[in-house]
Amino acid sequence: MNSYHTIAFDADDTLWVNEPYFRQAEEQFCGLLEDYLSHHRVGQELFKIEMQNLDLYGYGVKAFMLSMIETILEVTEGNAPIQLIEKAIAIGKEQLQKPIELLDDIEEVLAKLSQKYRLIVATKGDLLDQERKLTNSGLSKYFHHVEVMSNKKEANYEKLLRQIDCPAEQFLMIGNSLKSDILPVLNLGGHAIHVPYHTTWVHEEIDHQIEHSNFREVKKIRTILDFL
Amino acid sequence: MNSYHTIAFDADDTLWVNEPYFRQAEEQFCGLLEDYLSHHRVGQELFKIEMQNLDLYGYGVKAFMLSMIETILEVTEGNAPIQLIEKAIAIGKEQLQKPIELLDDIEEVLAKLSQKYRLIVATKGDLLDQERKLTNSGLSKYFHHVEVMSNKKEANYEKLLRQIDCPAEQFLMIGNSLKSDILPVLNLGGHAIHVPYHTTWVHEEIDHQIEHSNFREVKKIRTILDFL
Repeated sequence: MNSYHTIAFDADDTLWVNEPYFRQAEEQFCGLLEDYLSHHRVGQELFKIEMQNLDLYGYGVKAFMLSMIETILEVTEGNAPIQLIEKAIAIGKEQLQKPIELLDDIEEVLAKLSQKYRLIVATKGDLLDQERKLTNSGLSKYFHHVEVMSNKKEANYEKLLRQIDCPAEQFLMIGNSLKSDILPVLNLGGHAIHVPYHTTWVHEEIDHQIEHSNFREVKKIRTILDFL
Repeated sequence: MNSYHTIAFDADDTLWVNEPYFRQAEEQFCGLLEDYLSHHRVGQELFKIEMQNLDLYGYGVKAFMLSMIETILEVTEGNAPIQLIEKAIAIGKEQLQKPIELLDDIEEVLAKLSQKYRLIVATKGDLLDQERKLTNSGLSKYFHHVEVMSNKKEANYEKLLRQIDCPAEQFLMIGNSLKSDILPVLNLGGHAIHVPYHTTWVHEEIDHQIEHSNFREVKKIRTILDFL
């Protein structure tokens, strides 16, 4: 397993903590609307509206902010005090300014692998936000290239591979989302390593196991140093 | 002037109409708040808030939507009927779904140049929105690469040149913004052609003339075929 041209890392919940911050923000947001609906139901409404907006807004915190605001309008049937909007914006702005918390061992893993492979970041989300997070993470120096993708479907990976001039069979993707980091890459003939994270957005979940000769799963990221 | 490795085109107001749609959206938005403040003053408030948010939100329609919402909160001092928020969101969503209107002669120019040069798009703004606009424009086939940049400063162009492996002196940028498309490229030793558009966002304006041996200005895009 040592002939990779490029190893790509997902960013959120692979390099650093992300989803728990979203959960925390969602909790805070649901609290704003508890006079109208239970936490659980507000969460469902928010998710529904996020999914409705996904094609138009894409991923990332700004999209999340706009969906929170639309959820307020919907849940309160237009009768919310406008201060709720202000609070939702504050929740989003706080999220955009969270400090970066690296996942365990990630810096050591990148430092070692970057001596042997060309490493890139392949992440989806908000362009500016992801660039800022990478800068603040102090990890930029390990990466040859950073690709912020509008989505992580097969077509997006095909474009990425063309751009970095890498044959699929020499491409290894490492990430926490089976749906976004693993399946599309395997389908294109690439390799993938799944490093599960304890918290996963329901939108990223899939309902089946993966068995594939180009695939493996590791519990801890540092395990990959044993075979890379 | 025929040794360019890559010719990059700005997108908004270089390939297709953009700023007039923003002006129209702003006009509509200012109308929402006319009970509170004159159109002109609302426009000033909106611009002030957009500038305050620029580092955090970056460019693009979602950032504009969030700034409209914050302007409502500020101008009405938290006393707006919440329906105004709904209307601001509708203005933004409409803008994200505008049909693409190509600028005069642009397709002919791209068709001809793409036979002789490697063409790319270098645009700033919202990742998903810019990708969608390019797809809807029908112009994708002329471009070797599309780069959506979080900003268009020298550092961003340096990164782009590294990525496309192009020496600055063989790079030609074509666009409507002296500030974003021309000055940073000239400063790096590249070439630039300014094609002014009749409407320019005040944030993109500069207060001096440019004279530089690597620079020229053309009134109409098709003129560049005379010397490229």
